[in-house]
Amino acid sequence: MKEGLLMIPGPVHLHERIIRAMARQMVSHRSGDFEEIFSYCIEALKPLFGTKGDIAIISGSGTAGMEAAIASFSSIKKFTCIDNGKFGERFAKIASKYSEVDHIRFEWGKSIDLDAVEASLAEGSEAVTFVHNETSTGILNPAEGIVRIAKKYDALVIMDGITSVGGDEVKMDEWGVDVAVVGSQKCIGAPPGLAAVAIGKKAWDYYNERVPFYLDLRSYVKKAESNQTPYTPAVPLFLALAEALKIIEEEGLEERIKRHRILSKAVRAWANEAGLDLFPELNEYSGYSNTVTAIKMPEGVTDKELRGTLREEFGITISGGQEHLKGKIFRIGTMGNITKFHVLATLSAIESILIKKKAIKPALHAAVEVMEEI
Amino acid sequence: MKEGLLMIPGPVHLHERIIRAMARQMVSHRSGDFEEIFSYCIEALKPLFGTKGDIAIISGSGTAGMEAAIASFSSIKKFTCIDNGKFGERFAKIASKYSEVDHIRFEWGKSIDLDAVEASLAEGSEAVTFVHNETSTGILNPAEGIVRIAKKYDALVIMDGITSVGGDEVKMDEWGVDVAVVGSQKCIGAPPGLAAVAIGKKAWDYYNERVPFYLDLRSYVKKAESNQTPYTPAVPLFLALAEALKIIEEEGLEERIKRHRILSKAVRAWANEAGLDLFPELNEYSGYSNTVTAIKMPEGVTDKELRGTLREEFGITISGGQEHLKGKIFRIGTMGNITKFHVLATLSAIESILIKKKAIKPALHAAVEVMEEI
Repeated sequence: MKEGLLMIPGPVHLHERIIRAMARQMVSHRSGDFEEIFSYCIEALKPLFGTKGDIAIISGSGTAGMEAAIASFSSIKKFTCIDNGKFGERFAKIASKYSEVDHIRFEWGKSIDLDAVEASLAEGSEAVTFVHNETSTGILNPAEGIVRIAKKYDALVIMDGITSVGGDEVKMDEWGVDVAVVGSQKCIGAPPGLAAVAIGKKAWDYYNERVPFYLDLRSYVKKAESNQTPYTPAVPLFLALAEALKIIEEEGLEERIKRHRILSKAVRAWANEAGLDLFPELNEYSGYSNTVTAIKMPEGVTDKELRGTLREEFGITISGGQEHLKGKIFRIGTMGNITKFHVLATLSAIESILIKKKAIKPALHAAVEVMEEI
Repeated sequence: MKEGLLMIPGPVHLHERIIRAMARQMVSHRSGDFEEIFSYCIEALKPLFGTKGDIAIISGSGTAGMEAAIASFSSIKKFTCIDNGKFGERFAKIASKYSEVDHIRFEWGKSIDLDAVEASLAEGSEAVTFVHNETSTGILNPAEGIVRIAKKYDALVIMDGITSVGGDEVKMDEWGVDVAVVGSQKCIGAPPGLAAVAIGKKAWDYYNERVPFYLDLRSYVKKAESNQTPYTPAVPLFLALAEALKIIEEEGLEERIKRHRILSKAVRAWANEAGLDLFPELNEYSGYSNTVTAIKMPEGVTDKELRGTLREEFGITISGGQEHLKGKIFRIGTMGNITKFHVLATLSAIESILIKKKAIKPALHAAVEVMEEI
């Protein structure tokens, strides 16, 4: 296999300390050694979510976390599920397994219309689900705006923070988000395979014990009181997560968020200067994602010509569009422990390919200028 | 943390090649590199299950695999769940979430009475669940006997092979087991965090699309056709699993099963010679586990004196009893890539502790003799 650089919206390129953290002999998951690692992970995750509430860590994909966040609180009779991208849609699909769903769809790439959300909540939903940072389209959805409306109707707020927590500002308790989910392999910078769910007090009022056994957040939170997991955890991934959280502590969360914002701003500045169009259509509430940038594929360039060449010639992997967006957009992840160096290497490689195709003009200076701030 | 040796019934001590396999930069889970690793894992798992059927690999604990195996086929109206240990009980708890359950309980440590199983099936169960190798008690349950009865009533057979597959003989297709589950961290010798489920044709007749989203075996099997997973997989654990499966291929499955049988036989021979009592009560159908040995704690010795000293003085971890068996038994795992060396180190350390307590007589020669066969 080739040495390469992952610049996709997760799994992210790993810091070498995180790679090394996994490379050790197994410890018992019922030992003091593991308990120490586990309890450090729980405590270090709280500031990333901006919560003092409960934290459950599930050995599984982000999707396991999303489903646990729905299924554990499925005494809720009706969910309003906001969908303006692939992961918003996934929340709706999951919630439909457990309760009635009012599925509010916006075209992928479009921003959320808060009036439509309010209209749905007014019709008797007890909860709202949304994706904070929609990686499929590169949009930052208006968490605070959604919470404000939800509170008016006393609805529970369940947020997918999978690609914002640890890289962008998330203030769960201050905003009033009741349940939020993160994946290990995104802004936190660890390998994939762990999902963490943060749970505020109010959510427990909706606890449903008919939740699937493996996804029962109560059992995770209960066992966490003795620094353990209910089922055998993915030990190497906890070792990696602990190291990733230490790196975050060393960098400082504020600095980390600043870095994420500047790196994604640099990608956008480059795209604008190069004459490329960003994919998201913003409105007064939304913003561009601070962790992934979605750019329209320039005319006359195929996905294979851009992403294929990038991978084969330069060893750099970026993402294409998902489902009906295949070939229409490309996406550059700037999450985790990515530096100026990685962003410049990626943009200059993309630029060299697109200039050969006469699709853009040189624009690296625009990115460099933005990144002078860090 | 101390360097140590894990001799518990999973997670197991890791072969250094498996540790090193994880220590590499992340690859995209949608890349050819990952697809190759993934498809190798799928194919290499089949002979371990003794099947030509479908294989799903879930990023999650063995329990996630157990629940997927039940929930995906929950069109079954009534399950007979055989319980003679902690994991048999777990199957019953999980099945109760989805369908009616006839929970056939035998005291932990006792063997399964096949007449009781038949009586339950005769009352209209459409499926039977059982644990092949019950690690909580050290018993090998009679897979073929259970299948024979199940077939008489045309019932689906769902088997927990978590601690037998890869270390003991499992012939799913030949025996007629319809669904079986394995965990990565047991006989296969990889770290914890992956569960594989093998699915025979007949099981799909009972597929229920109301299965939890994350545990839907159909979506795993469908995506596996293009060598992918439906949700972001725990990539480092797949790298480790592939290496573990390569080690199995190199050793040869038959040799590996022989090694497991001899190592556990050596532990039993030592216990008998030392004057210790094995915990399981066998009947004509059952056997001693070939991967873990459960021994009664000698009188006058506490769990802390034995297992605590073993860990603190020798760095060796063995398991105690679970739930009401705490302090009453101790369990020595001999699964995965464990060798004579590890078994001898463990038994001699235990022996030195118990001899000091005047609880046993020297007996290492009995183990050495048995292990001369390998």
